[in-house]
Amino acid sequence: MQIKIICGQIEVTPGRPDLNFPKILAAIDKARTQKADILLLPEMCVPGYLIGDLWEQETYLDDCEYYNNEIIKASKDICVMFGSVAREVGKLNEDGRVRKYNAAFAAQNGKVVAGYWGHDYVIKTSMPNYREFDDYRHFYSLTKLCAEEGHDVVDALQPLSINIRGEEIRIGLMLCEDGWTENYYLNVPQTLAKHGAQLLCNLSCSPYTLGKNRKRNRLFSAQAKEAGVPLVYCNNVGIQNNGKNIFTYDGCSSVYNSTGELITSAEMYADTFLEFTVDTTDGSISAPTTVAALPEEPESVYKAIRYGTDKFLKQCGIKKMTIGLSGGIDSAVTAAMYADILGPENVLLLNLPSQYNSETTKNLAYQLAKSLGANYGVIPISQSFEHTVEQLTTTPITNLGSGQSFTLELSTLVKENIQARDRGARIIAAASAAFGGAFSCNSNKAETSVGYATFYGDICGALAMLGDIWKHQVYALGKYLNEVIFQREVIPAEIFTIRPSAELSDAQTVGKGGDPLVYPYHDYLLRSFIENWHKTTPADVLRWYKAGTLAKELGCEEKIIDEIFPTAADFIADVERWWRLFAGFSVAKRIQAPPILSITKRSFGYDHREAQLTPYFSREFYQLKEELLNK
Amino acid sequence: MQIKIICGQIEVTPGRPDLNFPKILAAIDKARTQKADILLLPEMCVPGYLIGDLWEQETYLDDCEYYNNEIIKASKDICVMFGSVAREVGKLNEDGRVRKYNAAFAAQNGKVVAGYWGHDYVIKTSMPNYREFDDYRHFYSLTKLCAEEGHDVVDALQPLSINIRGEEIRIGLMLCEDGWTENYYLNVPQTLAKHGAQLLCNLSCSPYTLGKNRKRNRLFSAQAKEAGVPLVYCNNVGIQNNGKNIFTYDGCSSVYNSTGELITSAEMYADTFLEFTVDTTDGSISAPTTVAALPEEPESVYKAIRYGTDKFLKQCGIKKMTIGLSGGIDSAVTAAMYADILGPENVLLLNLPSQYNSETTKNLAYQLAKSLGANYGVIPISQSFEHTVEQLTTTPITNLGSGQSFTLELSTLVKENIQARDRGARIIAAASAAFGGAFSCNSNKAETSVGYATFYGDICGALAMLGDIWKHQVYALGKYLNEVIFQREVIPAEIFTIRPSAELSDAQTVGKGGDPLVYPYHDYLLRSFIENWHKTTPADVLRWYKAGTLAKELGCEEKIIDEIFPTAADFIADVERWWRLFAGFSVAKRIQAPPILSITKRSFGYDHREAQLTPYFSREFYQLKEELLNK
Repeated sequence: MQIKIICGQIEVTPGRPDLNFPKILAAIDKARTQKADILLLPEMCVPGYLIGDLWEQETYLDDCEYYNNEIIKASKDICVMFGSVAREVGKLNEDGRVRKYNAAFAAQNGKVVAGYWGHDYVIKTSMPNYREFDDYRHFYSLTKLCAEEGHDVVDALQPLSINIRGEEIRIGLMLCEDGWTENYYLNVPQTLAKHGAQLLCNLSCSPYTLGKNRKRNRLFSAQAKEAGVPLVYCNNVGIQNNGKNIFTYDGCSSVYNSTGELITSAEMYADTFLEFTVDTTDGSISAPTTVAALPEEPESVYKAIRYGTDKFLKQCGIKKMTIGLSGGIDSAVTAAMYADILGPENVLLLNLPSQYNSETTKNLAYQLAKSLGANYGVIPISQSFEHTVEQLTTTPITNLGSGQSFTLELSTLVKENIQARDRGARIIAAASAAFGGAFSCNSNKAETSVGYATFYGDICGALAMLGDIWKHQVYALGKYLNEVIFQREVIPAEIFTIRPSAELSDAQTVGKGGDPLVYPYHDYLLRSFIENWHKTTPADVLRWYKAGTLAKELGCEEKIIDEIFPTAADFIADVERWWRLFAGFSVAKRIQAPPILSITKRSFGYDHREAQLTPYFSREFYQLKEELLNK
Repeated sequence: MQIKIICGQIEVTPGRPDLNFPKILAAIDKARTQKADILLLPEMCVPGYLIGDLWEQETYLDDCEYYNNEIIKASKDICVMFGSVAREVGKLNEDGRVRKYNAAFAAQNGKVVAGYWGHDYVIKTSMPNYREFDDYRHFYSLTKLCAEEGHDVVDALQPLSINIRGEEIRIGLMLCEDGWTENYYLNVPQTLAKHGAQLLCNLSCSPYTLGKNRKRNRLFSAQAKEAGVPLVYCNNVGIQNNGKNIFTYDGCSSVYNSTGELITSAEMYADTFLEFTVDTTDGSISAPTTVAALPEEPESVYKAIRYGTDKFLKQCGIKKMTIGLSGGIDSAVTAAMYADILGPENVLLLNLPSQYNSETTKNLAYQLAKSLGANYGVIPISQSFEHTVEQLTTTPITNLGSGQSFTLELSTLVKENIQARDRGARIIAAASAAFGGAFSCNSNKAETSVGYATFYGDICGALAMLGDIWKHQVYALGKYLNEVIFQREVIPAEIFTIRPSAELSDAQTVGKGGDPLVYPYHDYLLRSFIENWHKTTPADVLRWYKAGTLAKELGCEEKIIDEIFPTAADFIADVERWWRLFAGFSVAKRIQAPPILSITKRSFGYDHREAQLTPYFSREFYQLKEELLNK
């Protein structure tokens, strides 16, 4: 028999079961109209997934339960499988709150058709607790439940028998991480297949990460092949966040046949249906659509940032954005992205020059604003800066114990930061409120790594759109915007070639000096500190340097390391300098930084969790340092 | 036989095994000198506990392992039991990283004397995953290990047989949460006792929380009594943080005898030893010291804030603090606390008046600074404010698409925020850097709950010392400072009686108007949203209001609710107003807020995790609202 299945790749709004429920009902109606036998819906499509500690509100769970039941009731003439929270009153989580499961419900003709031992739903077995995931914080796993009740978890992993037009089909229903079996001692999909599943269904709420779709295709394809049955992956679209990180959900729902071939997949970020048919006699798959293209960098980065930013602004009700425009690449790309998302008429670009800003960058800022057709203003900060310096250096401070007075002295660094805060906190924050909407944080990931930015100066704004991409990715995104999106040079060519500079003092001006970060090297060094699966530390860096494998390990150009660092001493001093900042003061800055749109496999925020500590250098680091310096 | 045991209530520095190791060695030497048979040391005393994702650095684990082994080697003529991380190379955590356990090591004469199935240590069974705890993120539990290896976890929970001067004593060794058995299906201490433990030892890394010591005394006392054997609780001192929250560790190591009586306890926050003797024939306990007093509020709050702030400043290398002084209670208490901690000579108090500031508050600010004998300066913001308003309202903004120009208009709210940012970001941030050190965030928990503060204006600074106490607790702390700490009126009496006001516009001035929060009610309403174990939501509030039990449920005065809200409509509108802020825009503000010193059972930050969502009102809320309005 041919069984028609639809993946409902719907947009889920976290924290709003009242908004998700009508979307789900509409999907059920539409799937029924399209004569689907089974409608699959994503994990946690009723409550949303990343909702922080909202899980501790009993009244929130009341509503989720109510909507779960309404969805079950609506499953007339169709089988609906959907992910949601299940509450088991009378049992407790280990935190003493009511027992909750990350569950998959299967319903048909108004009744549930899944479950075991008094549970009317399938319970997630593998619970992710890395990156942004906190499953154990809120949910009880199937493994724990089985241990508690004296069952073997393997016995619990049984496929559901679903009656479709008089014929039984056995479906192995699982949730997201259950399919990412690499490091769990229990292999959920293969166990379900061994127990007779004819089709594996993975309901997911899985955020976009650069490169993850290809990894999932490899992994899920291998699973289907090993199990010898088809596998379908049903994911949602939309955005969810953990406070510090905005994650995009790219959908990309996919169907793999029993030999592991990817047969069809849904378009990235589309609120859409993916339809396919399973032949129960041989498990073969047919589908009206083929595989949707997976974009490469920088297109993939553009798509994720554009989608995520657009959705985030809509969620926050932000229709206009103000951006401080320095004439450098980060603010240029940010401005072009917002013009693309909101329309240039809703973008206010402000150039805020001091005596240290060159004609070059001021002109570049204007050219960019002009080519975008955005709103543009120039507000100098010199008078305010001078007033602040004067107030601070002439106001008498009196020690009211001794009666003695003194005045404050301002170092160059203090004066640099005064300028940055004058721009961000005095002008941009107020101008953006007056213009309507919010303002942007233009920091990239390299600056964020080492805190090369000023508290309340450029570390501020509603969203750090570029906060999870490195400087070289910012340049690539800028080129992509010119070439593909705008198809003209909206970002002036010189912005790509000028040496980056903060222009905050005589030492930091265009032409004379620039950023202390040499991006073709430091982008990759800093990336290894945060993105490497086993976090790289200075000891690793010195070990690789000594072995001559550093460039290969970091993924940067071979020659650059020797070009920048004539001696091992220079090299080591540089590693120490940035590590002290990375593991030290920059953590304090990130704690107060705006949310970051997450793109890579590890973004700053609650994806990569940090305590404020004093920087640590390991024993091996000191040994290697001594060896290298004495060589 | 009499066995002498010492609890080493040492200060642990998170992220610094190099600093913890010599402290541990010194403790071993000292305990040996004092002829102790057994030295107990806290959980995770080598690596620290709250170190974020530092657990993912292999080189960090290398060093922890090295120091673990060195401590084991140092256990000559003494048995040392200490908590640390154990790494099991060749096995993986579920995240694919190397397997790590939260472990307790027991060593004697240079060798380990604990363990099972190839593990030379005791593994934590109950893993906390609520509040600031992320145990499952990093550690594999004994339960999981047993499931994986096909052992019954109950069989693994065996006491250690320790030979003391020729006689065996069986010690039930466990880690922190293992003793908080309320909601775990496995009761670790009773299982150990059933298996013959003569003494239960709980090694902990347990932060201070208001009221927790009394709860632990109840719980642990009941455990000792039920088990019929003595129980010792060994906790560390110091501070640890998760980025957003600074936790203090108060020690309070305690010994309960076999009838559940608390025999002796160590002084709060003291880096000290707690000594006692167990008689192996009858399990009786004797100790040279008695039970240390547990302070009541506000003394306990004072102690925690003072200790935590002092340690945090030392860790950050901050020796001087700048505080913006408004003449209100929050900045007054903050200033007095810093004067107490750092000495008034290291405190700079700045009064930053605009046209809206009254002579009353300006005088109060001066009086306070004078009575503290701190450094004091007055820097008006009027000129800068006017300049900002002028720049923003006269600078032409040109739409470079259409060529049309316009100017911005500033609302009252925008002008209020300009003043707040002028104080915080323009003056205080710069002045504090020039003075040396950092500046303070003076927000209390009520303001933080609803975001009654300005981004980059008063939501800024190195630490929100009062960020986890409510307005009524701030007043109580202020009184305590005057009466007990300074023993004179350092905080002028009028600061306690004046109605709080932001003094940012004509409507918000002393005498004419004040804060929109009526603290004797809103303190308690907002507290229920965050601190109630089952988070209170507007539906709960309306249900209680309808039932006439609201004041009792919130813990506020009975009459105040009817005094403030003449009608149900007024009451509901107020709940809606603050809930929209609590669950809405204030989350965005908290995401960028400074770290908070944690005091209560739930503090904003990463203790209470939040996503930026749109506020949700449940179905029951709308039903109750309709009922109440139609009554």
